[in-house]
Amino acid sequence: MAVRYDWVSFTTDYGTSGGYVAMCKGVIATIAPTARVLDVTHDIGPQDIRGGAAVLARTVPYLPPAVHLAVVDPGVGGPRRAVVLTAPDGLLVGPDNGLLVPAADALGGVVAAHELVEPRFQLPEVSMTFHGRDIFAPAAAHLAGGIEPAEFGPAIAPAELVRLPAPRTEAGDGWLTGEIVAADRFGNLVLAAGPDALRNLGAPGDPLRVRLHRSTVEARLGRTFTDVPAGEVVVYLGSSGQVAVAVNGGSAAEALGGSAGELTISRPATDGP
Amino acid sequence: MAVRYDWVSFTTDYGTSGGYVAMCKGVIATIAPTARVLDVTHDIGPQDIRGGAAVLARTVPYLPPAVHLAVVDPGVGGPRRAVVLTAPDGLLVGPDNGLLVPAADALGGVVAAHELVEPRFQLPEVSMTFHGRDIFAPAAAHLAGGIEPAEFGPAIAPAELVRLPAPRTEAGDGWLTGEIVAADRFGNLVLAAGPDALRNLGAPGDPLRVRLHRSTVEARLGRTFTDVPAGEVVVYLGSSGQVAVAVNGGSAAEALGGSAGELTISRPATDGP
Amino acid sequence: MAVRYDWVSFTTDYGTSGGYVAMCKGVIATIAPTARVLDVTHDIGPQDIRGGAAVLARTVPYLPPAVHLAVVDPGVGGPRRAVVLTAPDGLLVGPDNGLLVPAADALGGVVAAHELVEPRFQLPEVSMTFHGRDIFAPAAAHLAGGIEPAEFGPAIAPAELVRLPAPRTEAGDGWLTGEIVAADRFGNLVLAAGPDALRNLGAPGDPLRVRLHRSTVEARLGRTFTDVPAGEVVVYLGSSGQVAVAVNGGSAAEALGGSAGELTISRPATDGP
Repeated sequence: MAVRYDWVSFTTDYGTSGGYVAMCKGVIATIAPTARVLDVTHDIGPQDIRGGAAVLARTVPYLPPAVHLAVVDPGVGGPRRAVVLTAPDGLLVGPDNGLLVPAADALGGVVAAHELVEPRFQLPEVSMTFHGRDIFAPAAAHLAGGIEPAEFGPAIAPAELVRLPAPRTEAGDGWLTGEIVAADRFGNLVLAAGPDALRNLGAPGDPLRVRLHRSTVEARLGRTFTDVPAGEVVVYLGSSGQVAVAVNGGSAAEALGGSAGELTISRPATDGP
Repeated sequence: MAVRYDWVSFTTDYGTSGGYVAMCKGVIATIAPTARVLDVTHDIGPQDIRGGAAVLARTVPYLPPAVHLAVVDPGVGGPRRAVVLTAPDGLLVGPDNGLLVPAADALGGVVAAHELVEPRFQLPEVSMTFHGRDIFAPAAAHLAGGIEPAEFGPAIAPAELVRLPAPRTEAGDGWLTGEIVAADRFGNLVLAAGPDALRNLGAPGDPLRVRLHRSTVEARLGRTFTDVPAGEVVVYLGSSGQVAVAVNGGSAAEALGGSAGELTISRPATDGP
Repeated sequence: MAVRYDWVSFTTDYGTSGGYVAMCKGVIATIAPTARVLDVTHDIGPQDIRGGAAVLARTVPYLPPAVHLAVVDPGVGGPRRAVVLTAPDGLLVGPDNGLLVPAADALGGVVAAHELVEPRFQLPEVSMTFHGRDIFAPAAAHLAGGIEPAEFGPAIAPAELVRLPAPRTEAGDGWLTGEIVAADRFGNLVLAAGPDALRNLGAPGDPLRVRLHRSTVEARLGRTFTDVPAGEVVVYLGSSGQVAVAVNGGSAAEALGGSAGELTISRPATDGP
């Protein structure tokens, strides 16, 4: 039986100044007048597939059942496929370039995947450079209205979907190192490491050292920003369950002079890495 | 018979930080509680009437039937008129400064225009500097609710509306020159020239030269970004049907060192311009 | 009897790039599927409680009856309380750090306040650093659905709420000085002084002098931007009823070389301040 969705979530790197997001919303409103659009963000870095995948994956667990439309698509018009992924708790629509899979995993895993090739569910004229408007938004709207994913095109084996390499992290006795996977507006820096990695670093109140490139700062393990005095650095478990570094009332990105690259957190007495 | 609209599209140069957009939406929600607002953009450059007109005109063809509320209004409080334009496929509300007419043309042309002077359809207190909130948003809400444009004030002959000069473009055998009319977040640069102008430059794969100010880069005519190798320049027909310049996986604005001014595209062997 | 609200207004310093706003909206949509969210802004300066309070207070008078959810929360996870304030014309939800009270005053004053401690109205797992998602958004959604504020926790005496110091302004015969309380995208600068303070400076057309730090510019008292020639400075009553400084077709912040600090407006012949 057809599943309908009240909500379409929407994630892109389009920015908000050019009208691109509005065109897609207009297409959705025309095809599925009662669907409600929930913007995840349109400020993913231009063509930053990995950044878009990370934001989408950590956001979807908090969204209502939805068709999740996401477009960060440097290969538009080329050979990359357009797909809809079926997860136990929702559908995901976008390019097959790694953007959608982490969010599908957060919704229970990919149980089916189909290519979007059926012209009936595309705009009458499909441009070569704006599939968000011409293919993906119409697909999301038709899916919200109850059209089955299998109507859009042939099935793809989930194992054949493009997947991004997992973010690097490495840990030893009293140290943790990895690439920064998210840096937010407050200058908080996040690693792809969970609660166990934090426990491995010590207990609340313990002193730590944080290094990024050539900057090193003293920090403390804590549970929230105000566990350290104003202006000081805290290492804590972020709100998405990942190890994070912040400055109370300030910006860790500023304190460390950057927001990208390899971050290392260690106990002062630790040898490696 | 009164026409009602479910949708109000909304375009401004207000930015999103000051609460101005929210005030207008609050006014609309209060007057027309069931109307749904679709944001086109609020990031038009401050007082950039031409930029606002371009974004609105290329967006409206993809929107559902709507009252299109647009405010880029450097002359607020002065003698410029407040107007509603009737097009075959929608209504447009805003200042009579050239902002609305290109979008009205995209919706089938101006079939009627009326001045917004009726105090019943304005806020009780009208400020001198924020007609978006006090005159235009209330008008859009009342129009969405079915009040006829003629109720708002006297008719204006369409020919008397303020119109912006058309963007300059010039073309010869194998060359095209014109002012950049849009530059998006990806650094793609757009001219006010259509498919014929592109064909005049050659066929897919042909080498071209692109010049902006003192920068010249080698390019190829293509249909999408990935028709050229990563980092190279492609000249193509953009998704709004206009000649555009992009870099595959990069930014044409960066490659050419700018995003405004006179852009020239030519075949290498061409003499002019 | 339970009061229900169709609208939840939403104000934060989260920015729009990280998905935080979307997570909160997802939580609201899940708890209160028919509630409609009206974004005031998510671009308050990071942790700028005073800026957030000013934008919210000047915006709420134009919003429909609503639960006003606002989160600028540098003390999250620390001892600061989470509260709901009841005003005659709406409810306000957020941290007890001064953010909400000016808006409550604009809605008729705080008639009751309650702490948000009831776990039934929070997410099952409450993080230490993201109470917007885990405590405040669920509270706003439940309040919109008709749950009484008293169900959330013990009453707080309104006099015990944290209040921000009032912005400084001082005026004498023909002069006015005070800290800039708002600077918008157009470079307009606003003081916390009303119509009386403007009248004390003179009448429309009178010459004035405006000083910020070491910059002084000539200005005129006017009612709107176009009361002075293009590029010149006008002192006027802004659209929220406060004395403001603008440049016709330009930016007062640029003309004065800044948008923060002590601004002084005086008649040329005036001695003080």
